Amino acid sequence: MIIRKATAADLPAIIAMLADDELGRKREDASNPPNPAYVAAFAAMDADPNQFMAVAEAGGDIVGCLQLTYIPGLSRKGMWRGQIESVRVASSQRGSGVGHKLFEWAIEECRKRGCGLVQLTTDKSRTEAKRFYENLGFVAEHEGMKLSL
Amino acid sequence: MIIRKATAADLPAIIAMLADDELGRKREDASNPPNPAYVAAFAAMDADPNQFMAVAEAGGDIVGCLQLTYIPGLSRKGMWRGQIESVRVASSQRGSGVGHKLFEWAIEECRKRGCGLVQLTTDKSRTEAKRFYENLGFVAEHEGMKLSL
Repeated sequence: MIIRKATAADLPAIIAMLADDELGRKREDASNPPNPAYVAAFAAMDADPNQFMAVAEAGGDIVGCLQLTYIPGLSRKGMWRGQIESVRVASSQRGSGVGHKLFEWAIEECRKRGCGLVQLTTDKSRTEAKRFYENLGFVAEHEGMKLSL
Repeated sequence: MIIRKATAADLPAIIAMLADDELGRKREDASNPPNPAYVAAFAAMDADPNQFMAVAEAGGDIVGCLQLTYIPGLSRKGMWRGQIESVRVASSQRGSGVGHKLFEWAIEECRKRGCGLVQLTTDKSRTEAKRFYENLGFVAEHEGMKLSL
């Protein structure tokens, strides 16, 4: 399995993974060619040096993805944060260690960039995900609060 | 009260507010001139079009601050998120509506930038902060998970 920066050609596979999920099903549009909103968002990420959309590839297939955002900030003596969003493992690969390898890689990337913290939010209904993150050392000391506009 | 983009000259006032807080006291360095780590982090934020360090000013004094980060992403049909960190109101001004005004302004900025969501995390020990965010419409449906590096 290799982990690399996503290209526009990976978009259909990424979107299919985002949609193949209990919560994602209601939120995503898995049509192909991709909805232009995904193409525009990908272009914005691709142009931003503090964004890294990562895919895991095995045997020519995209088997996982996550988005890394590097955030400078003043709090905690000017500490950078690594933030993780859009985590998915292909349903055929769940339980195979793909997610764990992706996270070990992501945490190491954050370390290389000088981040003092890695953070993410996970829907409280995803009890297995919470356990997965706790096994990696994440602590749920914060509330993740969201306001839809 | 006006809300504007912070300049490097505001750093001592911002750091003093970050440090004047139950959790911040242990994490920040309120020495002046500022620790170079703050100066470097501010320069990184200032150069990034997806970062906006905001200060609220009243009668020539800095009375509040927050950091806005605009995050492009593929999830939810390529939705942008507005993220808020480093929220502080000067202790002399707490309860005066400064925080509420700052947040109304920040939410409106996120709307103008086309964000579909505003998100933040708050330490679970800050019970008053959680209530403040809920009054603004934020919902604590997510766990905010952090891993210190």
